[in-house]
Order: sequence, then C-alpha cells, then structure tokens
Amino acid sequence: MPIVEIHLIEGYSDADKSRLCTALTQAARLVVPAAPDAITVMVHELPPGHYMRGNAHRQPAPAKPDPSDVVRRYLAAMEARELKQATALLSDGFTMTFPGTAPMTTLDQLITWAGPRYRFVTKTYKGFDALQSESEAAVVYCRGTLAGEWPDGTAFGGIRFIDRFEVIKDKIIRQDVWNDIAETRDAP
Amino acid sequence: MPIVEIHLIEGYSDADKSRLCTALTQAARLVVPAAPDAITVMVHELPPGHYMRGNAHRQPAPAKPDPSDVVRRYLAAMEARELKQATALLSDGFTMTFPGTAPMTTLDQLITWAGPRYRFVTKTYKGFDALQSESEAAVVYCRGTLAGEWPDGTAFGGIRFIDRFEVIKDKIIRQDVWNDIAETRDAP
Amino acid sequence: MPIVEIHLIEGYSDADKSRLCTALTQAARLVVPAAPDAITVMVHELPPGHYMRGNAHRQPAPAKPDPSDVVRRYLAAMEARELKQATALLSDGFTMTFPGTAPMTTLDQLITWAGPRYRFVTKTYKGFDALQSESEAAVVYCRGTLAGEWPDGTAFGGIRFIDRFEVIKDKIIRQDVWNDIAETRDAP
Amino acid sequence: MPIVEIHLIEGYSDADKSRLCTALTQAARLVVPAAPDAITVMVHELPPGHYMRGNAHRQPAPAKPDPSDVVRRYLAAMEARELKQATALLSDGFTMTFPGTAPMTTLDQLITWAGPRYRFVTKTYKGFDALQSESEAAVVYCRGTLAGEWPDGTAFGGIRFIDRFEVIKDKIIRQDVWNDIAETRDAP
Amino acid sequence: MPIVEIHLIEGYSDADKSRLCTALTQAARLVVPAAPDAITVMVHELPPGHYMRGNAHRQPAPAKPDPSDVVRRYLAAMEARELKQATALLSDGFTMTFPGTAPMTTLDQLITWAGPRYRFVTKTYKGFDALQSESEAAVVYCRGTLAGEWPDGTAFGGIRFIDRFEVIKDKIIRQDVWNDIAETRDAP
Amino acid sequence: MPIVEIHLIEGYSDADKSRLCTALTQAARLVVPAAPDAITVMVHELPPGHYMRGNAHRQPAPAKPDPSDVVRRYLAAMEARELKQATALLSDGFTMTFPGTAPMTTLDQLITWAGPRYRFVTKTYKGFDALQSESEAAVVYCRGTLAGEWPDGTAFGGIRFIDRFEVIKDKIIRQDVWNDIAETRDAP
Repeated sequence: MPIVEIHLIEGYSDADKSRLCTALTQAARLVVPAAPDAITVMVHELPPGHYMRGNAHRQPAPAKPDPSDVVRRYLAAMEARELKQATALLSDGFTMTFPGTAPMTTLDQLITWAGPRYRFVTKTYKGFDALQSESEAAVVYCRGTLAGEWPDGTAFGGIRFIDRFEVIKDKIIRQDVWNDIAETRDAP
Repeated sequence: MPIVEIHLIEGYSDADKSRLCTALTQAARLVVPAAPDAITVMVHELPPGHYMRGNAHRQPAPAKPDPSDVVRRYLAAMEARELKQATALLSDGFTMTFPGTAPMTTLDQLITWAGPRYRFVTKTYKGFDALQSESEAAVVYCRGTLAGEWPDGTAFGGIRFIDRFEVIKDKIIRQDVWNDIAETRDAP
Repeated sequence: MPIVEIHLIEGYSDADKSRLCTALTQAARLVVPAAPDAITVMVHELPPGHYMRGNAHRQPAPAKPDPSDVVRRYLAAMEARELKQATALLSDGFTMTFPGTAPMTTLDQLITWAGPRYRFVTKTYKGFDALQSESEAAVVYCRGTLAGEWPDGTAFGGIRFIDRFEVIKDKIIRQDVWNDIAETRDAP
Repeated sequence: MPIVEIHLIEGYSDADKSRLCTALTQAARLVVPAAPDAITVMVHELPPGHYMRGNAHRQPAPAKPDPSDVVRRYLAAMEARELKQATALLSDGFTMTFPGTAPMTTLDQLITWAGPRYRFVTKTYKGFDALQSESEAAVVYCRGTLAGEWPDGTAFGGIRFIDRFEVIKDKIIRQDVWNDIAETRDAP
Repeated sequence: MPIVEIHLIEGYSDADKSRLCTALTQAARLVVPAAPDAITVMVHELPPGHYMRGNAHRQPAPAKPDPSDVVRRYLAAMEARELKQATALLSDGFTMTFPGTAPMTTLDQLITWAGPRYRFVTKTYKGFDALQSESEAAVVYCRGTLAGEWPDGTAFGGIRFIDRFEVIKDKIIRQDVWNDIAETRDAP
Repeated sequence: MPIVEIHLIEGYSDADKSRLCTALTQAARLVVPAAPDAITVMVHELPPGHYMRGNAHRQPAPAKPDPSDVVRRYLAAMEARELKQATALLSDGFTMTFPGTAPMTTLDQLITWAGPRYRFVTKTYKGFDALQSESEAAVVYCRGTLAGEWPDGTAFGGIRFIDRFEVIKDKIIRQDVWNDIAETRDAP
C-alpha cells in the first residue's frame, strides 16, 4: 500500500511513462511512509476511441520533456560556450539573477558581467531535483561545485553553487544562481 | 485526462489526503501537459479488513508530516533564537553547511560562526518547494531575502538566500545554505 | 458483460442513484445486445475530500430532478386547471405548439385557442420516454389517448395524442403536441 | 465528475464504442448536472480469455445497429417507394398506426389508405431521438414537416409530423404516426 | 503483483471477508509464483443501492459458512458421541463410505458396522484442506492419526487416516474415509 | 456479484490465465453463495513498462505449472514403470508414505515394499482436487480405485484409494497414500 493507478490516452513513450511512474511513486511517498517496495503504480492506457470527455474523443498532447534534461542541455551548452544553442533553450521573458546582479535577460549581459569575475568556470554536479510547481512552470534545482580560473589566471575549485530554474514546456524562463564565489574570493 | 486513483488503508487525515491529492496532481503534470482542470485524482480508502497483502491484513502507518512544515517550524525557532525548540527538530547525524564553512553539526557551532558576520538576521520568504527524493529523505527548498544588522550595527536587507533541507520523518538531517552576504558585504 | 462503473461525489439520494443506474443500464443496452441480467452497474461514491480536479476538491451539484416527474406534475396541474401551479413549472422562453397553431407562450393563449375546440379534455397515458439531448435540455415524450366533450357537449374518447417536452433543470421550456382531434372531428 | 467506466469484451467497432460512450455520457447527464466537459467515459476492452463469467470464457455478441439508422433507412425507402427494401426492414409482428387508422400490418394497407389523402408526401426532419426501452425494443422518435400534393394536385407543405418507432435488433416492429394533415386540410 | 480486487454487496462479516481474501490470495498463488508479500487483495463493498444487475438492485445472500468449520463441528460431535448434533449437520442424501463398506446413509449404520472393529476411536488432526469444487459442493479433507481401543480392550494409536467431505451450504452430503486400521490390525 | 479483477504483468499463456480465472471463481464461490453465472472475473494485463513497484519496473515470473498435471504425469510414469521419468518429477527432500510404511524416499524402496503385496496395480481416477496451501506447496488429491493382481496371480479390482501430493514448482515433494488393500485382502 498504497496502489496508484493512472489512466492515460495512448501515445506516451516508454520513457515518459517510466518518468510518470516514478513521479507518482515519489508523490505517494511524500505523504505515506510505506517502504518503497510496497508502493505500486499501474498505468492503464486507452486508445483515443476508448476515452470520451465532454462527448468528444480526445487526442493525447505530446508529453512534456523532462525539465532536468532541458536544464542539463542548457548548462552543457553554456559550459561549452555554445551560446546559440543555449539561447535556443531560453523562453521569451527569460530572466536570470546571479549573486549581486539585478535580473538580466540575455546571455550577453551575463558574459559581460562575469568578465571581471572569472576567466572561466566549470561545474561538477552533486544532484538535480525537479518538481512541478502550482503554476505552469516546472522547477529544477541543481547544485554542486564550481572550478575555474580567477581573472589573474590562478585556479579555484570546490566552490559550492546552486541554481534554480523554471521551465515551461521545453524552454527556461527563469534562472536564479547562488554560490560562494564572493565568500571564497574574500578569504585570505 | 489523466485520471489518477490511489488506494489507501483508512486512517489518514483530510489534510494528509489533500496533500497527497496535490502531490499526485503535480506528479501527473510534470509529464502530461494537461490543463489542471483535466487532471482528476480519486482516493479510495479501504478499512484494514478489506486489504490483505501477503495473506495478512495491514494497519496504516501514520502519515509523514509535511516536510515544509517541519522546516518552517525550525526556521521560526531559529529566528526567535529558541534553540531548544530548533534542536528538537534536528535528527541524529544532522549536518549544516553555510557559505564558506565546513559542515557543522550543532547550532552552537553555527552561532559562534555567525557572530563576527552579523548581529542578527531575519528572513522574508519568496517560496518553498518540497519533493520526495529517491532516498528516504524529503527535500525542502526555501528562498527569499535576508535583513539584519552588520556587526557594526548598520542595517542590511534584500540579500538573496536559498536553503536546502533534507527531512526524514519529522526531523531535519541536513541543511545547506547559500546567500549573497559576502557579495553584498564586498560591494563598495 | 458489460460492467459499468460510475464514480460520483457523495451527495445524491438513493432515488437519484437508482435512476442513474437505470439510465446507464439502458445506455449500455442501446448498443450491446446483452441479456439484462448480464449488465451490471456499480456506483462508487467519493467524499469531496477524496476527489480532486484541477488541484481543488469539489462539491457535488444537486441532482437534476427526473424530467418525467416535472412533466407529470405539469400535466396533472393542467388537467386540474391549476394554472398557477402549471405556470410555475414553465421556464422563461417557454413555447408550445399545438395542432394547427403557431407557437404560443402562455397558458392563457392556449385556453383561448382551445375554447372553440372542446369543453374539456382528460388524458390517459400509455407511456413516457425520457432522454438527455445533446443540448442542455432533457426530452420527455408522453403518449396516450384523450377523452372529453366537444363544444356541443357530446363526448369523445380514445383519440391518440403525443406530447414532446424539453425540460431544463426543473422547468419546461418547450411543449409540442400532436393528436388526432381534427381527424376524429372530421369523421362522419 | 462523474467518471464512467465500461468493461467490454473485445469485438465492437470504433463506431459502436463511440455510440456507447455518447449514450453513457447522456445517461450520466440525465441525472448529474455536470458540465459536459466534466463527464469522462473510459472503455476497457478485454479479450475473451481475460473475461470469465460462470466459470466460462465468453464471446461478445455483435453490437446492435443504431436504431436511428434502421429508421432512416426505412423512411428513405418509403419516400423513394422502394417497398421491397422497406418491407425488409419490418419485423414479424409489425404494426403501424396512422392518424385515424386502426393498426395496419402491411405497407400495402398503408398505401391503399393513403391514396385518397394525398398523391405523395416528403419529409423534412427536425430531429431524431433514440433510447432503449425497458423491454427489448429501442425507441426512435423522428419529427419534422411534411410536404406533398393533395389528391387534387395542389401542393401542401410545412405540416408538422412525429413518428415513433420500436426497433428490435435491426427490424422495426411498431410505427406510430401523428401529424396535422387533418387539421390543415380542414383549414379554410 | 498480482493485485486482486473483489466487488461485493455489503453484508459480509469481517471473518467472511478475511476468509475470502485468503481464498483469493491462494487462488492467485496457485498460478502466479509471486512471493506472498507481493500479492495484494482489495475488497470493495457496495451498498445494495450502488449495485444494479439486470436493472434491479440486489441484496447480498448470507455468506456460506466455512466448510472446514462444518466438518470440525461434525467430527467433534461424533467423537463425543453426540449423535443428534452430528445428524443435524447431515444433508438429505448423505452417504458415507468407510474402508470396506458399501455406502451407508445413517450414523446408526456406521455405529453398527464399527462395533466389531473398535471400542472407540479419537482423532488427532495433522491438517485440513478446503476448496470449492466445480459443482455446488465445497470439499474438505482432514487427515491425521487415530487412537483408541480394539474390541479386546488393547489400545492402538498413530494409525493414519484421511477423510474427504462434501459440504453444501452448512450440511455434509458425503463422507469418504480411508485409514490403516486393517493394515495395522493385520500386522504381527 | 461478486466481480473479481486481477492485475497481472503480461506474459502468462491463455491456459495459465484461464486456470487463474477458474481458481479465482472457485475462491469467490467458497464464501459467496452466488450462482456461478453471477461471478465475473476480469484479467487486466500490464506490459512491464506500465507496472512499477518500489520505483522499479518488473518482469513477470513464469507461471507455475498446474500441480494436477505434475501429479498426472508422475502417476502415468509410475503405472508405466517409467521410473526414470517418475524420478525426474521428484524434488530433493521427497518422502512418501504408504499404508503401514514409514516414510520412504526413493522409488526403489517403494518397489521393494510393494513386491510381496501385489504383482502390479493400475488406477482408475474418480477425481482430482488441487489447492494452494499457506506454505509454498500446492496440494493435489486424487482418488479412485485400484485394480491389479495379488502375488498369487489372482485379480483384484475396485479397491478404493486416495493419494495426497505436495508439489513445489514442478516437483513432487511429498506423497501420502491410503487405500483399502489390507481391508480387502483380509476379507474372507
């Protein structure tokens, strides 16, 4: 216990349904203290002709992509400085806030801002968390550590960071970044 | 579509079941791009005598508390400097990491560390996010801004922060904190 | 076979649910040639807290009255010349069409029109049929025979009639009447 | 709400199942005042080997045809004077009653009776209503207006009519007809 | 896996439903090699007004008694020589066959037959097995060992026996007995 | 009533599922006094990707063989003196007890023991009963009559017997035999 059943119109991929089963499992576990092995999820698929709502058969909408995947693709593109690819993953209305900045809306702004802070930075990930918010956006958190070079060419590493993303469909609409760069830079 | 059904042994409160319905709704929305009004959740309750697993009737375990509530109680106790109450919400094995610190394990360590950084700090919350991890812990994020006084008595405010908590049952086992204090303090 | 299940929010009366079971039974029989005894209907009730749509619990709306009952009450009031009661069962926008008339909108019009046709008329019912239309209205048919007196005081009887009603909630919005009065009156 | 589920042995056509979904939707709406978009129907099909009743697997019987279609084919054949085709749609035990007639059992009787009434008649349909009765028969109502020529060759039109049919399987066993022909003929 | 659900009209006792859950669990295990803990049974009860078959609501019939209990009561009465009580548990048409006998129909016949075989006998039970046959009868097997005294007053014990009973409702209609009495008696 | 539903991962043969439907039907009948035709079983199959337990998709284990078939194959091999085939159906830990014997563990022991009792024996079956025990073993009973020749070559027949088998997976782990051979042999 508990047993969760979901009825879906046919058309989702195995990966989508697996992701859905996992999300339902975790949703149940958030409230019910069952051992994971006691939580069962069953997916019941219906062809469109077996499902009627409001006296009309319905077609399934394509599954939303995994928002963590959208974020990973964006982070990979940024780290590789593939700005065109990264920009393609940003939604109209995108804003990003970095430590000490006002909200920025373009990657060019970000690069200008980062210039005097570090030569480059790479990320090592400790974990991703994703959830659906009450609004349209999915929320993705990723955290880990930064390594790179200060403007004077000396190396740094092991600096903690966390990013929070809001993803609508397959685009990022908001990024908030926190890290210990200032803390580290200050340290004697 | 989709329609989610969950079968539960009787014994959960209305608030628990409502929380469960919301978690299942959001789980479905994470993958299926349905309008919220098209997502239905039905809870089917069974008395223990109507449920058998492994040839034995079962009793429901008490619901897990809302992990966001655990975190809110902890944050309120910390802000009010009610250290005894706050400590009571910490699990064996608790660790916390603040900007620039190694993991600390007691609130006393935290207070000693914070002493030279600020006289006091209060938090204004912009949002909480909670989810169940694959492990036993629930994860809670809270973010917002800090206000308070520097050691010299001058005020600060509007400093962004984010905390990440891991909660097992009704205790916090891990806290990770990021904020822009160093960034702000450095600013001319 | 077939087996029909319906999930409802709690709050319908036994009579409502029985009427619903019958309607679902007949709906299945309209297409599936099963012996009636092979058609099963199960009603599953959910308290409002066990049902969530669009991330909100819902309250059941009161059941619609049986549209045949609305029509029977109207016909009984008309036959008893209780015009006030009959009028109370008519919706805004009510129209009625009798043999050879244009649509009328008030019972006074009807009485004026009927005056030269017969002194009075009573109805013997052979059957009622009710169904839900695709629009908001339920449709009720009733048929049987008329008896009464011609204007000259001679009696008539056994004259076939059929009435078609459209009912929205608990009001009649349309009545269409056909009968053999002219046919009979003409007969030598 | 409500959600209707029907379990069927495999073997019905998409059109049959769609008709069934619509009939179940309307059955629910007859009692429950839900917005159509809040009414969901799910069809669950089982292969014969997945369904056992009375310790025996079962085969599905062929779906009943849509009784409105049977009636439309009959009415089209009658209007085209394709008496053989029309007769093929009549069941043993068929009777029909027209205004002022005793029950007739053959189309020849009808034609003889109609001879002195009109040269020909065509129908314009305003609507069909179909439902399953408690007995074996489905009931179909159709209504609209008649046009044609009186015996003296003058034209008539716009005369209201209604027909009531009882259909068992794919044959008509009873037809009852009402119209305003006598009313109109009498008018000065 | 598997998950078994049973829909019942309300009215069965907790003991009946528990017995039913166990029977369904064992039925599933007879075919599916799941660990017992992976087999879930859920009982869904419906008040009579929520269940319609053949357009009629139904009342539940009283549960059949556990056929093993019927047999145990009979065996206890026989061992205590409470012949009236034992007889009350026998159905019309009862027959019993013991080693070397033709079918007998009354307990008196049995006692007469047993007279020269032993003074008395008591049973120690090693196990009962019960199942529903394809016919109306439930079948109960019980096995164990006999102890008692031979006609000459010497004691015997540890003699294997097995009884097979057929039970219809709460009466025994057939008993078949096998044991090693002759084998033992013969032994030098 | 009742209606039984079972949810299974895909992969069982039609014969397995039919056997499962029958076992579930009989399980329900053991408690609920419904006419067989009122007992419905529905099998719902899920592909592995539609079933998740403990956050993992699962593969179905192969169905257990019908334990009555295992026993029939063993009895046929024994009757045909195909000892190698018979032995292949015996589990490690197999024991068998015959009238008057201590538990034996090999077919050779059995043959040695039977030598002085009869030249050969054949079985006519009156019935098989199979059920799942609470332990891992399925239990099979078979009963009927024995025919054969005494050591002196004279024929015997019509001697009642019953065998009880315990079967784990596709091997017999225990056989217990009762019959009236001694009773018959003793008879004058």
